[in-house]
Formats: sequence, structure tokens, C-alpha cells
Amino acid sequence: MSSPPQPLSIDNINPAVVEAQYAVRGEIALKAEELRAKLASDPKAKHELGFDSVINCNIGNPQQLGQKPITFARQVACLTEYPELMDKPEASALFPTDVIERAKLLLGAIGSVGAYSHSKGVPLIRQHVAEFLEERDGFPADPESVFLTAGASVGVSNILQLLISSPQDGVMIPIPQYPLYTAALALNKARPVEYYLSEAKDWEPDLESLETVLATATAAGTRTRAMVVISPGNPVGNVLSRPAMDAILSFCHRHNLVLLADEVYQTNLYERSTRPFVSFKHALLTHPDEALRTKLPLVNFHSISKGQVGECGRRGGYFEIVNFPGPVAEQVYKLASIQLCPPLAGQIGVDTLVRPPKPGQPSYATWKAEMEAIEASLASRASHLAKAFNKLPQLSCNEAQGALYLFPKLELPQKAVEAAKAAGKPVDAFYCLQLLLKTGICLIPGSGFGQAPGTMHFRTTFLAPGTDDYVARFERFHTNFLEEYKD
Amino acid sequence: MSSPPQPLSIDNINPAVVEAQYAVRGEIALKAEELRAKLASDPKAKHELGFDSVINCNIGNPQQLGQKPITFARQVACLTEYPELMDKPEASALFPTDVIERAKLLLGAIGSVGAYSHSKGVPLIRQHVAEFLEERDGFPADPESVFLTAGASVGVSNILQLLISSPQDGVMIPIPQYPLYTAALALNKARPVEYYLSEAKDWEPDLESLETVLATATAAGTRTRAMVVISPGNPVGNVLSRPAMDAILSFCHRHNLVLLADEVYQTNLYERSTRPFVSFKHALLTHPDEALRTKLPLVNFHSISKGQVGECGRRGGYFEIVNFPGPVAEQVYKLASIQLCPPLAGQIGVDTLVRPPKPGQPSYATWKAEMEAIEASLASRASHLAKAFNKLPQLSCNEAQGALYLFPKLELPQKAVEAAKAAGKPVDAFYCLQLLLKTGICLIPGSGFGQAPGTMHFRTTFLAPGTDDYVARFERFHTNFLEEYKD
Repeated sequence: MSSPPQPLSIDNINPAVVEAQYAVRGEIALKAEELRAKLASDPKAKHELGFDSVINCNIGNPQQLGQKPITFARQVACLTEYPELMDKPEASALFPTDVIERAKLLLGAIGSVGAYSHSKGVPLIRQHVAEFLEERDGFPADPESVFLTAGASVGVSNILQLLISSPQDGVMIPIPQYPLYTAALALNKARPVEYYLSEAKDWEPDLESLETVLATATAAGTRTRAMVVISPGNPVGNVLSRPAMDAILSFCHRHNLVLLADEVYQTNLYERSTRPFVSFKHALLTHPDEALRTKLPLVNFHSISKGQVGECGRRGGYFEIVNFPGPVAEQVYKLASIQLCPPLAGQIGVDTLVRPPKPGQPSYATWKAEMEAIEASLASRASHLAKAFNKLPQLSCNEAQGALYLFPKLELPQKAVEAAKAAGKPVDAFYCLQLLLKTGICLIPGSGFGQAPGTMHFRTTFLAPGTDDYVARFERFHTNFLEEYKD
Repeated sequence: MSSPPQPLSIDNINPAVVEAQYAVRGEIALKAEELRAKLASDPKAKHELGFDSVINCNIGNPQQLGQKPITFARQVACLTEYPELMDKPEASALFPTDVIERAKLLLGAIGSVGAYSHSKGVPLIRQHVAEFLEERDGFPADPESVFLTAGASVGVSNILQLLISSPQDGVMIPIPQYPLYTAALALNKARPVEYYLSEAKDWEPDLESLETVLATATAAGTRTRAMVVISPGNPVGNVLSRPAMDAILSFCHRHNLVLLADEVYQTNLYERSTRPFVSFKHALLTHPDEALRTKLPLVNFHSISKGQVGECGRRGGYFEIVNFPGPVAEQVYKLASIQLCPPLAGQIGVDTLVRPPKPGQPSYATWKAEMEAIEASLASRASHLAKAFNKLPQLSCNEAQGALYLFPKLELPQKAVEAAKAAGKPVDAFYCLQLLLKTGICLIPGSGFGQAPGTMHFRTTFLAPGTDDYVARFERFHTNFLEEYKD
């Protein structure tokens, strides 16, 4: 007989929730929110704080920072929301014909965006995803193995929930990692099994160490179920080389690990000739080991939140399961069913992502110009910021090969380390909090992602439009900080 | 040291996922999907099957069944998707001024629907929800206690995940219940603690039994954390009386249970004078026991999927936490943060739900007419169907007081019970599967929701437009079934 229930308190709720951390929206992000509110409501705040705006470089949220949406995607979304508009005589002047055709095609398959769809997502949109995958990977894809999701995160959480049976189960994750993974593992009461990315080798995983990492986990009683790879990388902006991918595939096959390939940045590429994006699906199906091609279970994730479209708020994405035994695939479907269906606006976003206007269609020129302008702007800001960081003392930064982030390395004086210790914070968190309070720049400390012991970093997006302002504020702060904490 | 990992199989994934059941999208729903595909692709199928369409009465999905969306909501959604439209000269002819004003107001607060919002939801929309709650309940509501969600289900899942710490934890749920609850409890590895609704008393909970149910669970080692109440009820269509609500509040307070009030059908009411909707928030804050008002933790859930708007596919809703200790409320926020943010289209749907056009505004007359037409049509179909069921032998049905469902009781002959046993199915599942195969009508058997031992039921929505066709097919089947299995 158990003791009678106590009043609700922090001491008797799920400890897994209490322990989960999500640095991207952690203490520093909350403080930034507070400063933004203060600046908006109090005209004296900018004098008091010494800056007139918060520069949000903590979250990959392009449209919050002024990136314009892709017109084609939004026009299609607009008409699917209010189909009567298509019947008005004004419609043909307001919308290109390919937009109207797409909206009609989708509505024919969907019925209404206000209805629950199939739990895996609208069959026609999954068919379009399968066609996209076939063109991208060079191999047919099965629409029944494609699951539309409310962004990649919910897909990752579902797959982890499916794979994890007990608190002894573990999942290999890169360090540094995107903290969704540690948070989802914490919520599922599972163990992160950490493998390191090597900063000296352009953040390529430390392949030699994989066997040791796994063996050590096994020796500690961990049953490792899966391996997460993020390429292009968050937070480090690397793009995996093909030899590294092949080695990872062999490693997973050798140890019966399910490979989870987070490929949401697959079109954010800055060194396309030397570091093109190769999907893990393609690498799997062209791997020299033939047994592996039909055996190794792979889940690949994509999203409309990133890339050039940056439609985070719609909550759309998909994952494809490959080499999943039928009964396990059925359980993936059941889990999706319990969640009813992904938001239709997100599903429609996926459709316009995987099936953009083609040459010759009325929307093509605008679409192409918009995509290229966003890509050029991201590339230029990435390079501008990396150069600025590399000019500063005690700071070094790999160039971004992909994704939306830089992950510069800090070398801070011992006096700063001690001041941070006195403040009860990791030193990079201490640095980032000071930066926010003195300049309004909001970054995430490397300790929120994990990093090699003894190193210090921060992650910054390069999405904020005023790079010069950012760099000027940052330089001033960094110089003063080093001066203040000089040993 | 653990044994080396085995290849992925149904035997080594999370047993909690394997065991979770969700009847609303279970075997019969899958079979219905198959029949629909067959009818769509094979011109001979209708002769072979003996019917020309599947009638979906298994899911509360109004717009799938032809219910028209509310114009105001869709016009606002349309303009927030494609704001440039407002600047076109045609806009003023195409959209009423209050639609344009609302879209501008929302976009001013949101920025872009393609951006992540605050994890709790757009602050302005939460402010509007708080104003709605204040008007509904007669007491101020705090926007910081309002969490927008991707529908009520995800809110329920999050709160259950927060409350459940161990496999000994339990949550009281009504029987019959909406199977989201048993599925979420199974996924969280917690125990359902079942209390019965009394069919003879218009599905009012069996209040006398609550203490016994709880004591029995406690004696079995269960730490009961919370109690779920669904009113208006799913699947049974009851609306709780105020005395029952007061008794439930006292019971929860006495035993330190968190009260989870699923009120997503709060505007689907068919006996407004005798069974008005009273919110648990209002009942809590006007409860005679003063200590309870400031102590009992309550979560109340609402959704845009139900009511008259029926916008299931947008995935929008909210919950409000009341009397939650600050540190626990912070954990609710953190959990929301890990999930980034609810879909913006859903959030905008919540805004138009809680702040519809007012008398005197250009959209008011249309809005009012649309809402009333939907309500009248639901009321008429509910009553038509209940009457038809009550005319048939071996079938009895309470009238719906609220929600979108009837839950008629079947009394089937022993021969049918034996045939079902031979087929390895509960007898109501056997009946519903036969019904589907012979008529195309898709219902959910009572065993999918839970029911008093020895009783048999099914749940039907009254959303399908062709009630006469439904009734005709049903009567023919039911009569033949009783004849076929006559003892």
C-alpha cells in the first residue's frame, strides 16, 4: 500500500522532466526575452542598458529576423486556407496559374485543411516526398515509409520513444550536439552515449574513437540502440565527407545500431564543390557492403524550418524509415495515429518544399531569385562573421561548410574562469550572459551543446541582418572582457 | 556488461509503444481506409461490396465530412499566410475590414507565421485567451498560465508526462473514456485507475464509487496523481451537472489529485437550458470550500478541433494551469520549450475561436449564421440518429446532451457472442466489423473506450451528412444481424 498522495510540488513530479535541459531556450534566452520586453515598454531602457535592441543569434529562426518567406509557398498556403478566393474574378490577377493549380491539386487530395489527414500525412504529399527522395538519392522511395511530421523534432522524439525500452538503453550522439537529443533522451530516461566531433578536422567525427565509446558504454551496462548523426551539423556547421559516412554506416551495421540521420540543413551548403550534401539514404544504398544495404535500419529526417525556406512556425517536416521490419514500421504508424495528424499547414509547406516550381512555370523565376538571394545572404554573413571572429584574440572559428551556425572556440583567461566559478556558471555561459547584458547579443554557450573537456565555445546563427552592428558590438565586448579579466 | 545489441525487431523496441492501443484509429478504421481506397480505384468494387461509399462515423472530423469552415477564421488565416494580399487594391473588395484589421493585429504581434513563436504561444493570443476565460468564468485569468498547444491531445500528453514519475503512478479516468488517455498512460508506463460513468443516470459519474476506486488503487500500491474528467463527454455525450462537479472538486482536493478537465466540446450543447456548460475553472472558483479554491491544481483544456469550428487539421488548442506551484509551472514551460512552439496556423485558429466577430462588425452576421447552422444541423442529426437507434430492437441510446457522439447500448444474442469468441474479438468489435464490411458504416466498438463489464456499445459521431442513408443501411444490417445470430 502506497502512502497517500501529497500536494503537487516540484518534488513529486516526473524527475526526468525536471532534469531535462534545453539550452537553446534556457536561462540566457529567457533573459534576452526580458531585455526585449524592457526595451519595448520602457523608453529609458536603452540608455540604462547601453544598447537599443536585442540581437537574437540563439535560435535558427530566420523569419523572426526578417528573412522573407518564399512567395510560391505562401501563395499556395493562402489559397488552401481560403479556397473561395480561387473562384473570384480577381484571383487570376493576384495569383500565378501554377499557384492556383497547385492549390487545387492539394485541395483535391486533402479536402479541407481543417480536417484531420491520414496520420502519416496526406497520401499525395507523401507521394511527392517519395518522388523528391527518388530524384535526390537515385533510388525509389516508398510513400508508405514516409511519415510527415510537425517538424523534425517531433519525428526524432517519436523514433527515440520507439527505440528506448529501459533506462539501460543508450543512443550515440555527437558532441557537440543539438540539445533536442539530450532533452529527448532525458525525457525518455535513456543514456546519451557521447562521441566527439574533432574541431581540428573540420568537425568530422572522431571515427577511431567510435568503437571505444561503444565498448565503454557496453561495459557500463548500456544497451546502445541507435546512433545520431547531424549533417550538415548543428551546432558546428560541418558537412560529413563520404568516407566518414561510409565508416559510420559500417560501424552501425557491425553493432546493430539504428542510424538516425538528421539532415534538416541539407540545402544550407557553403562549399558545394568540395563538401556537397550526400544523403545517408544514398550512401546506404551505394555502400560497398551489399549486406548492409538491405539490413541497416536508417531514419532520415528533413524539415521545412531550415534550408532557404525557413518556415519554422508552420511546423512541417518528414522522416523516412528504411530497412525497418514490417511489425516495427506498424508501431511507428500507431504512434503517429495516437498523435492524430501533423498540422496541414506544415504538410502543405512540405509539398512546396519538395516540389518547387519548375523551369518554364510562371512562379519559377521569382522562386529561383528568392532562393538564391537567401542563400547568397547566408553565405556572405557566415563568411563575414567567421572572418571577424578569427581576427579577434583568444577566438578561433572554423568556416561553416553548411547549416546556419558558427561554433567559435574561446580561450578565456584564468581570472574569467574563476569569476565564472564564483558565479556558479560554466565559463562560456558566464561569458555569454555578460555579452547579452552588455551588448544585447544573445548566443548559446558551448556548454549547452557539450564540448571537448576544457574547451569553451559559443554557438551563433548567422541569420541576423545587421552583421556590421553585431560585429561592432561583439568586438567591443570581447576586447573589454579580455581586458577586465586579464590574468 | 550488457549483451550486444540485436537487429531491430518488434521484440526489442519499447514495449509501452507496442502495448498502447488507440481504437479510434485501430483495426476497423484501417479496414475502412482499405475499403475506401478500393471503391475509389476499382469500378467493380461497389457491386462486389454492396455499397458505394464508406460512411465515416469513427472520428470527430467534421470538415472531412463536408462541414464548411467558418469564413471569418479562414479569411484571417489566408491573409496571415500571404500578407502582401492586404496591400493589393483588390483586397478591400475581397475581405471585410474586420478581417483585414484582425490579420494586421495578429501579424503585428507575430511578425511572420513562418517564425517560431514564444514556446507558450504568441503573447497577444494568450492575452486574448485570458480575456475569453475571464468572460466565460467570471474571474481574471493570467496569460502566463495559458499554454497554446497543437490541439488538446498534445497538452494532455505533456501534463501526464509531467505528473507521472514511476510505473506505480496512476491517473483516474472515466470509463467509457476517450482512448487518448489510456494510450498516453500506456506510453508513460502509468496505471489507469478506472471510475465508471453510469448509463442509467445519463452517464453522470458514479460518485459513490470514487472513494472505493481510489482506495482500491492505493491498496494495490498505486500512487494516484490526477483525475481526468471529460465534459461534455467523449464518447458518451453527457454534460456534467454542477452538483457532480462540486463533488469531484471536493474529492480531488481531499486526495491531493490534480484535476484535468477536458472541455473541448464546451460549445457542443444540445440541452442548453437544463444542461448548460459550466467550466471547472468557474466551479472551482465558486466552490463552497474556500480552501479548495486556492489550493486545488486544475488544468483545463480547449481545442479548435471541435465545437462549431471543427478545425482539426490546423492543430490548435490551449490549456490553462490553475493553482500550480511556481516551480511546477516552470517545468510545464520547459517541456513546451523542448517542443519549440505550437503551429502558428493553429494559434491563429485559437485567436479567431476566442475572439469571434462582435455585433456591429462586418463579419458578424455571416459568422453568426454559420455557427447557428452548424449547431442546428448537429442537433438535428443527433436527435434523428438517437431516435432511429431507439426504435430498433436490442438497441438503446441516451440522447446527447453535448459533444459529437452517441454511445448506444447493444444487447446481442449468445450466438453472436460465441461467433465473436471464435473470431477472437470482443462481440461489439465483431458487430462493428461486420457492419463495416456489409454497409460501409465505420463505427468504433465500445470495447475501444471501456464499458461496464458485460455490456456492449458502439460510438458513432453524428457528423456525416446523409443521416437517412446511414439509418437505412444501419437498420438493414442490424435486423439481418439479429436474424442471423438469433439464439
